[in-house]
Amino acid sequence: MPSENQTYASAGVSLATAEAVVDRLRAAVASTRTPGVVGGFGAFAGLFAIDGRRLLAASTDSVGSKLVLARRAGKLSWCGADLAAHGINDVLTTGAEPLFFLDYVAASTIDPEQVAELVEGAAEVCRASGCAILGGETAELPGIYRDEEVDFCGTVVGIVEREALIDGSRAEPGDVVVGLPSAGIHANGFSLVRRIVGDGPFDAELLLPPTRCYLEQVRALRARADVRGLAHVTGGGIAGNLARILPQGVGAVVDPGTWERPPVFAWLAGHGVAEDELRRVFNIGIGFCAVVPAGDVGPGDHVIGRLEAGVEGVEWGDA
Amino acid sequence: MPSENQTYASAGVSLATAEAVVDRLRAAVASTRTPGVVGGFGAFAGLFAIDGRRLLAASTDSVGSKLVLARRAGKLSWCGADLAAHGINDVLTTGAEPLFFLDYVAASTIDPEQVAELVEGAAEVCRASGCAILGGETAELPGIYRDEEVDFCGTVVGIVEREALIDGSRAEPGDVVVGLPSAGIHANGFSLVRRIVGDGPFDAELLLPPTRCYLEQVRALRARADVRGLAHVTGGGIAGNLARILPQGVGAVVDPGTWERPPVFAWLAGHGVAEDELRRVFNIGIGFCAVVPAGDVGPGDHVIGRLEAGVEGVEWGDA
Repeated sequence: MPSENQTYASAGVSLATAEAVVDRLRAAVASTRTPGVVGGFGAFAGLFAIDGRRLLAASTDSVGSKLVLARRAGKLSWCGADLAAHGINDVLTTGAEPLFFLDYVAASTIDPEQVAELVEGAAEVCRASGCAILGGETAELPGIYRDEEVDFCGTVVGIVEREALIDGSRAEPGDVVVGLPSAGIHANGFSLVRRIVGDGPFDAELLLPPTRCYLEQVRALRARADVRGLAHVTGGGIAGNLARILPQGVGAVVDPGTWERPPVFAWLAGHGVAEDELRRVFNIGIGFCAVVPAGDVGPGDHVIGRLEAGVEGVEWGDA
Repeated sequence: MPSENQTYASAGVSLATAEAVVDRLRAAVASTRTPGVVGGFGAFAGLFAIDGRRLLAASTDSVGSKLVLARRAGKLSWCGADLAAHGINDVLTTGAEPLFFLDYVAASTIDPEQVAELVEGAAEVCRASGCAILGGETAELPGIYRDEEVDFCGTVVGIVEREALIDGSRAEPGDVVVGLPSAGIHANGFSLVRRIVGDGPFDAELLLPPTRCYLEQVRALRARADVRGLAHVTGGGIAGNLARILPQGVGAVVDPGTWERPPVFAWLAGHGVAEDELRRVFNIGIGFCAVVPAGDVGPGDHVIGRLEAGVEGVEWGDA
């Protein structure tokens, strides 16, 4: 294990490069815009109006590097769950209910057992969420994938009434940020985790627990609170993702001392990942955020932050 | 170039393995079924009822091995076009009009230029088809993808009125098969093509022309004919894909002498690909099939076959 600080960039993934791509793609995407498209580029889910009353919300994602460790640990089904939960959480940020999921498994060699584990893991989350698996594709691509490696990609489509749409625009100073606990790392930041683990043994229960699906919790919260914004905490961490849904001129201060972190984040810190890097790459214990009026907070809610005017984006309360 | 016959299996892709996966997945998928789901597993596109009147049609696919040659030839934008056209053609088989597309680019190293070429290629087809790019994702996964390699995956969602749904069920003996010409190989069978090409030079204009999008042709055909079935000719060739939409007890006889093949199929034959392998893996010049009553055939239509009772699946008329 290297003793220097682990940064996401040094583990082979450049967030800056990802940003450059996003800029370059904006023009191509804009050129395809049709009257059905609602909102801009870069949200957790794209929105498309199918009639005057309802919108579809759609998101595509993949599992990526976590699969490498999951395969070694015999936990591919957990990555299936990751993919379905990740997509459902993404469409959930708009207030949508999931309708269906489609997946794509590609590998150097298609191992039916592995594919079945992945899809069964996804099916478990889909079943619990009322999200039908509507189709899928497998591809054997030995020229593209490294020997024995596999990638798992999927798309979730959901639906939301226009009047129930959540987009952060009504969030205002004085509102609070309610944090929903994560199970651990979920599925982001695994290039870094893999570099720490190397070829050595590791604790699968510590590192690989699947992404939590927040559908039930968000439904329950919406039933009793005026939910004004929802953020799925993925690559970019709490700050990076919460900032995506705040309106112009409204920032948030999040106090990282207000919740307990799952043990894996101490494990990462113990392996040289600095606190600011932890916060920038990982969810550090909060997998999903909801912005609600302070008066709507219930007894079981973890308030982790507060919206303030004059704050740029998201600041850490202990900084 | 090897002198023995090239089979798809010997080039590293086993269609039989793909079949085994499909069986294993059926149960997992069935367990997630919700009342919105219409039809079975394995169609070109999954169908989901969003109200009493309309269905969504969705399909996920990837470009795969063609990308390896396209990258070498500087033609990645053609593969972007492949992916969008492939997905649109898939949803088109249900009678649906495309609404939106989401994509996923993954690579060992994200090269913004390459991603932009892929998405720009997809955008061109999407723009011409009124299909909005609603979202996308890029992932840098050096542990999973071979050095310099990239995969491009996407999902198209379309919409169709229930009364306009096309599913092959009304196809009957005496109907004819109208074939829509392909541009060449399109995007299937490239593991085999790559094995022939090896590391040598190749003619990109011959091997890589992008998948034709059949939206306009299908719209025009539907405006003047009672279209009863539509098949997208992908892996499995004309016979394998046409068979997917024929009702029980109705087969088709296709005469491969009724159209001219693009030159690339003679090139494949010249490199040792046997005729039956050509027919099983490639579109051999027909990228899309429509089943219509014999009386609805128009002057510009290529009739390539006829539906018959007592025929199992699809037979070749010259066999």
